Amino acid sequence: MKETIERVSAEELRAFCTGALEKLHVPRGDAQVTAEVLVEADLRGIDSHGVARMGRYVSGIQQGMMRPNAKPKLVHETSNTGTIDADAGLGQPVSHKAMELAIEKAREHSLGFVAVKNSNHFGIAGFYAMMALAEDMIGICTTNTEVIVVPTFARNALLGTNPIAIAVPSGKERPFVLDMSTSTVTRGKVEVYARLEKPMPLNWATDEEGLATDDPARVIQNIIQRSGGGLLPLGGALEESGGHKGYGMALAVEIFSAVLPGALYANRVYPKGEDGKPLPSGIGHFFGAIRIDAFRSKDEFKDDMDDLIRRLKTAPKTREANRIYIHGEKEFEHAEQLAKLGIPLNPKVAEDLRGIARQLGMSKPF
Amino acid sequence: MKETIERVSAEELRAFCTGALEKLHVPRGDAQVTAEVLVEADLRGIDSHGVARMGRYVSGIQQGMMRPNAKPKLVHETSNTGTIDADAGLGQPVSHKAMELAIEKAREHSLGFVAVKNSNHFGIAGFYAMMALAEDMIGICTTNTEVIVVPTFARNALLGTNPIAIAVPSGKERPFVLDMSTSTVTRGKVEVYARLEKPMPLNWATDEEGLATDDPARVIQNIIQRSGGGLLPLGGALEESGGHKGYGMALAVEIFSAVLPGALYANRVYPKGEDGKPLPSGIGHFFGAIRIDAFRSKDEFKDDMDDLIRRLKTAPKTREANRIYIHGEKEFEHAEQLAKLGIPLNPKVAEDLRGIARQLGMSKPF
Repeated sequence: MKETIERVSAEELRAFCTGALEKLHVPRGDAQVTAEVLVEADLRGIDSHGVARMGRYVSGIQQGMMRPNAKPKLVHETSNTGTIDADAGLGQPVSHKAMELAIEKAREHSLGFVAVKNSNHFGIAGFYAMMALAEDMIGICTTNTEVIVVPTFARNALLGTNPIAIAVPSGKERPFVLDMSTSTVTRGKVEVYARLEKPMPLNWATDEEGLATDDPARVIQNIIQRSGGGLLPLGGALEESGGHKGYGMALAVEIFSAVLPGALYANRVYPKGEDGKPLPSGIGHFFGAIRIDAFRSKDEFKDDMDDLIRRLKTAPKTREANRIYIHGEKEFEHAEQLAKLGIPLNPKVAEDLRGIARQLGMSKPF
Repeated sequence: MKETIERVSAEELRAFCTGALEKLHVPRGDAQVTAEVLVEADLRGIDSHGVARMGRYVSGIQQGMMRPNAKPKLVHETSNTGTIDADAGLGQPVSHKAMELAIEKAREHSLGFVAVKNSNHFGIAGFYAMMALAEDMIGICTTNTEVIVVPTFARNALLGTNPIAIAVPSGKERPFVLDMSTSTVTRGKVEVYARLEKPMPLNWATDEEGLATDDPARVIQNIIQRSGGGLLPLGGALEESGGHKGYGMALAVEIFSAVLPGALYANRVYPKGEDGKPLPSGIGHFFGAIRIDAFRSKDEFKDDMDDLIRRLKTAPKTREANRIYIHGEKEFEHAEQLAKLGIPLNPKVAEDLRGIARQLGMSKPF
């Protein structure tokens, strides 16, 4: 059975998301930023963080988990650092402001680091790190997330997939844009295997006994029911394969994103009220901007970046491989292609978006 | 056959290393710092980076790879950043100075980041990151290294084991001290398997064809002869197991440690002269210090760190596990034990050190 995949332009998708959020009383500017970050994820091929999330944002706002009219507040500041209380609003607008503040501070004082507490899901970490590129700065972004990753030797999840994004400017080559979860894979990948009823590699997840499992449906069910087990840190279950290193990276991200600004951390995130309804998730983020020319001439830096990238890309390959990638390269190419062809919408996502339009009394989006 | 392992006190080892380096015209202060960093590695159980390295330092100085009387120079500076040219000296003294400078800048301006070029092997990255702890700062340290790690899909090594160290203060609990290579394992671990003639797990290394191999002797031989293959990034050979993430972390470390200060990078490091003799390795390092109270009250931060650490340590364990570790914990316990018992010297290392004493005309060290 062949499904027809419809393609929608990035512009149309942005307009739809902006409109839907405005219907939910999100101010226009905040709605636009949120839509931009979501659609950028689709363009870059990170569908799990794109418009497919709109349903969760709509219910999040309706249930009071995300405040549409949040007033983020700078609660601590120095010449080159800041801490923002996001007032339980959408993650994207406050994160955009926080990264702008980090960049502004770096412009004047070489470095700018801003941490955010009391926030919500902010989309792809890479979006914010990449904001530094136009300024010839290195951009950094981390966030803690929903708890679904098991520390090495623990039976239950206590950390999130805790992504790290680092964007570095280059000259003629494309910039280096690392945007990775610190788990071996994300929940989205396990869900794909569950849909295909395909056994997973054994270094992806553990079952409710804490044992490595190849059963994706069981892992997803355990995550939903919070009945134990979860995703494994990068490196897998054992110290032998370096699992304690992925666990260490995840813990470092938890500290920078949550403990530093005073956000919720570990299994304190995503609390529920007495009525069982979700409260604001309480997660935090961390943003950094570093001026290249605070260390050396930015032109020399870019020349060396280009040379480093070319050394990697032109190196001899393994027999099975056609290409050595630099981080971000696949996503830039994907985005260029989809900007021309339109973004392919999975039928379920398209139906969800039409459902949102009906529910909010908007005209049929596409 | 049982070998007798002799134990030597940390103090004796430090005195010996300091004395040997002084014989090679390293100024007393620099020799002391170098000895301190080396012996700290032995205390913490990271033997591969401890006094076992002395032989390589002695020959490095004698062959002109490391300049004993180097005069490091601050070549670029802002209020909270700096770049130091190490003048091809030993890695430890310049790294100690660089981290002190980062801390001093952070004391005044919340953040301090210092990069170093034209340096040499600096010992354990964790040593420098941990210098920030006493100041209630987060410490960060990275370095690029000898090229022995294969990027995902590459046949040959083009990056180093590129460690990342992050030290974070806590309250009553021990601090979090992550000190990890970004490869699955380090060369030392492969050498241990080679000595035991034991097959390795398949996610550790590739052979000269770029295929995963369990043959440690072949990998070590290939590294020495530079005949291809090498250690795998954290996550192994495939994208499926997250190898591209370990490769990304290694590349990020290469950029911060080497491209940012203008050091040698990728396969430009550890060059040889026309006569085949090793030239200064040309590697670089990166050091950072971040004041906690630039973001929030340090007491509240420490309370949260303690709570986070306890949540992890007291969590339910997998059936096979007795304990969930926080990074640095094993090493602190090891160091406390060895401070009492003395450092056990592998017979080969003891013989090497006695050989150094004879060669340099020193009295029998122990």
